[in-house]
Amino acid sequence: MERAMALARRGESAPGSSPIGCVIALGGEIIGEAHNEVEALCDPTAHAEILAMRRAGARLGRSRFEGATLYSTLQPCGMCSMASFWAGISRIVYGAERDQVHKMYFEDRHLDMMDFISDAFKDDVSLRGGVLGEACARMCYGPGDNPPEVAQANK
Amino acid sequence: MERAMALARRGESAPGSSPIGCVIALGGEIIGEAHNEVEALCDPTAHAEILAMRRAGARLGRSRFEGATLYSTLQPCGMCSMASFWAGISRIVYGAERDQVHKMYFEDRHLDMMDFISDAFKDDVSLRGGVLGEACARMCYGPGDNPPEVAQANK
Repeated sequence: MERAMALARRGESAPGSSPIGCVIALGGEIIGEAHNEVEALCDPTAHAEILAMRRAGARLGRSRFEGATLYSTLQPCGMCSMASFWAGISRIVYGAERDQVHKMYFEDRHLDMMDFISDAFKDDVSLRGGVLGEACARMCYGPGDNPPEVAQANK
Repeated sequence: MERAMALARRGESAPGSSPIGCVIALGGEIIGEAHNEVEALCDPTAHAEILAMRRAGARLGRSRFEGATLYSTLQPCGMCSMASFWAGISRIVYGAERDQVHKMYFEDRHLDMMDFISDAFKDDVSLRGGVLGEACARMCYGPGDNPPEVAQANK
């Protein structure tokens, strides 16, 4: 998680990026890592977790990484959580919880995707939140903040 | 949808691909199109819809395409549906319904993501399924088929 936080800090200072970092580890080795680059790449799917999965696939030469753990500084959004299941990731560990940050970081407005996931995938993945959560949350806009529009597009 | 079906047929014959096609249109123009290339690219996120969104972003030079319609030959999975929301896509039109194809095409085993989405995003997107649905479904493994393991990895 400390490595993911370092990536998030890199995202904080890079243009078109945002301070969310992700590391995927398998067998004690980092197989993919990234920070959010949605605006820098003009790619709505370029969340830190998705980029880290793409890099892990390219590195391993396959599209599934059973046994891998995904570390993210923020609770993964719905898209990234579902992508983790396609990648066969076994464990998701995250820092800040949804209620510690501004709502712009999540796409589901009326319901909580994480509730859905913990039901729909109860046999497939282990989830653990709140690891260094306060420090991770401090890098994001808080629930009461009023982020500028450009930051919201970039979430 | 006919263009999406042509892409799906291209995916059917390409190695490491699968017969699912997607077209994104905005203002009467195609801004992105793709077929599934998960295995060909060693990228668990390389579903037709995600690749089409990435290409649309690169083409338009931005990460959101409000007003766009996404056409897919198969009901989009959870990952792709959530990605559509991040991309600001306004309308999703798909061919085959979930129950017309093998369960390997969907990541959610215990619950139906589409039910979740139609609740969670009721104000944000218009959904329409079953357009040329039977013809689209015929390109996929059916509910009672026993697909080879390599096809399942590639879904």
